[in-house]
Amino acid sequence: MAWSYALVIDPAAADDARTDFAGSFTPIDPTAPALSVGELSTQRGDGIFESIGVVDGHAQETQAHLERLAHSARLCDLPAPHLEQWRQAVAAVARTAEPGESVLKLILSRGVEHGPSPTAWVTLAPAPDNTRARVDGIRVVTLDRGFDSEAPARAPWLLLGAKTLSYAVNMAAIREARRREADDALFVSSDGFVLEGPTSSVILRFGDRFVTPEPGAGILHGTTQVSLFEHLAERGFETTYERVAASALSNADAAWLVSSVRLAAPVRAIDARPLAVDADFTASLNRYLLSPRT
Amino acid sequence: MAWSYALVIDPAAADDARTDFAGSFTPIDPTAPALSVGELSTQRGDGIFESIGVVDGHAQETQAHLERLAHSARLCDLPAPHLEQWRQAVAAVARTAEPGESVLKLILSRGVEHGPSPTAWVTLAPAPDNTRARVDGIRVVTLDRGFDSEAPARAPWLLLGAKTLSYAVNMAAIREARRREADDALFVSSDGFVLEGPTSSVILRFGDRFVTPEPGAGILHGTTQVSLFEHLAERGFETTYERVAASALSNADAAWLVSSVRLAAPVRAIDARPLAVDADFTASLNRYLLSPRT
Repeated sequence: MAWSYALVIDPAAADDARTDFAGSFTPIDPTAPALSVGELSTQRGDGIFESIGVVDGHAQETQAHLERLAHSARLCDLPAPHLEQWRQAVAAVARTAEPGESVLKLILSRGVEHGPSPTAWVTLAPAPDNTRARVDGIRVVTLDRGFDSEAPARAPWLLLGAKTLSYAVNMAAIREARRREADDALFVSSDGFVLEGPTSSVILRFGDRFVTPEPGAGILHGTTQVSLFEHLAERGFETTYERVAASALSNADAAWLVSSVRLAAPVRAIDARPLAVDADFTASLNRYLLSPRT
Repeated sequence: MAWSYALVIDPAAADDARTDFAGSFTPIDPTAPALSVGELSTQRGDGIFESIGVVDGHAQETQAHLERLAHSARLCDLPAPHLEQWRQAVAAVARTAEPGESVLKLILSRGVEHGPSPTAWVTLAPAPDNTRARVDGIRVVTLDRGFDSEAPARAPWLLLGAKTLSYAVNMAAIREARRREADDALFVSSDGFVLEGPTSSVILRFGDRFVTPEPGAGILHGTTQVSLFEHLAERGFETTYERVAASALSNADAAWLVSSVRLAAPVRAIDARPLAVDADFTASLNRYLLSPRT
């Protein structure tokens, strides 16, 4: 993956009286040095992000991603992002995309240590080819996330509902999954409830019911999952948020890990136990996810 | 705090046959752009670090910090740092320090996404004035760390003994402490055992016994704590690692949060309950910590 475009946003230029923010973006060479070593994003993983799928130049679900960025900012005591400024930045970057799929990242960092304000930037890169994960499916292993399902409500400083830059554990979980000859991980709370993947939400199918763990349980509210639930409801299926015991995984008729760039990856094994992949149904979900969505 | 010096290390130049690594360091302007937006340290908090105290140009406990850097690298599946290369980098940076106290940071990042190798750099900055914390002491509040004391052994992918760049939770805990009108936090496991501060180790005094929680419980093995234990043992005190129940905090005769730059900060209140500060004894600890240590 090579970065194709990047720009830096000046958060200090966000002003409610302003309607055109073009002058508050500075295009940069995405491969050249752009950040100082004093950046708290790099020293402390102290900041938040979003990854937006771009299909043929159209940024998917921009509003939902911007709202989640604002939600993460609140949880992390970061200054509220000016959503209109970010929307215009997303549009400016998305229009540089080549045909096909790209990944657009928004980063809002606490800034340079002792600096005056946050730093913020947006990058674009061609998406990796996810055909195999979408068609053949992925093998997942359940991994203990360490905290119990009551921790998020009890200890908000754990930032469990925020999409922060502190993803070292998420990356370690994916490496652990590969050590176990799987493709991805599925986090489970220490008291045995299904949570989410390190970079995805999980959707389980039980007959004609589609279930995702409750967002209050210390997981991200997935933009792709929400979008798929709307789509499934339109098709007449029941969709619901529930506490899902890990023991219920073996009763699921199907499962997907869903995310903004890989989209719906059908799970073909959980902890080495095979799970059926409905190829046609999964393909219909990914056709929907690749259609323009706002 | 302004950065006074920084250099980038070329890990690819680390070669066991080599004895002089000077050519593998590139001095950079610490305030100028140096890192690309593709850096995994900044995108994912994916890397490790150490903070070394520098006193009058002498880097304290360099060997212990380098060994912990290597330990963190193992836990995070990062390539092993070449310790002689890093030792020479530390020396090269430390000799640029002004008289007085400075902070020297080592960072080893997983590198640029899909890049060929890790990136690594060392920074130097004057230390903040920590006199008040060392003399008047600090108020701390206990905060739930979310995981139980068995989690580190059960789930190594949580990286609980590694000093990673994913410190968003540590920073959020300090903000929560300030909201509660305290200066710092003391993490406690979800099953009620004392762990560590967000950027420090805790030492408790019970009579002539000095106690620190066991490093196996998912905390960092503090270089300053180890150094102080050696010093206290030489002075004839008993030092020991134990599981410490949070309920035992109220029986402590004294407590300190200890770290490489702030050194020994006596705790003058835990959860608003006052604790005696022994000013002379604490001063003797900080005199020791400010003396040249290897």
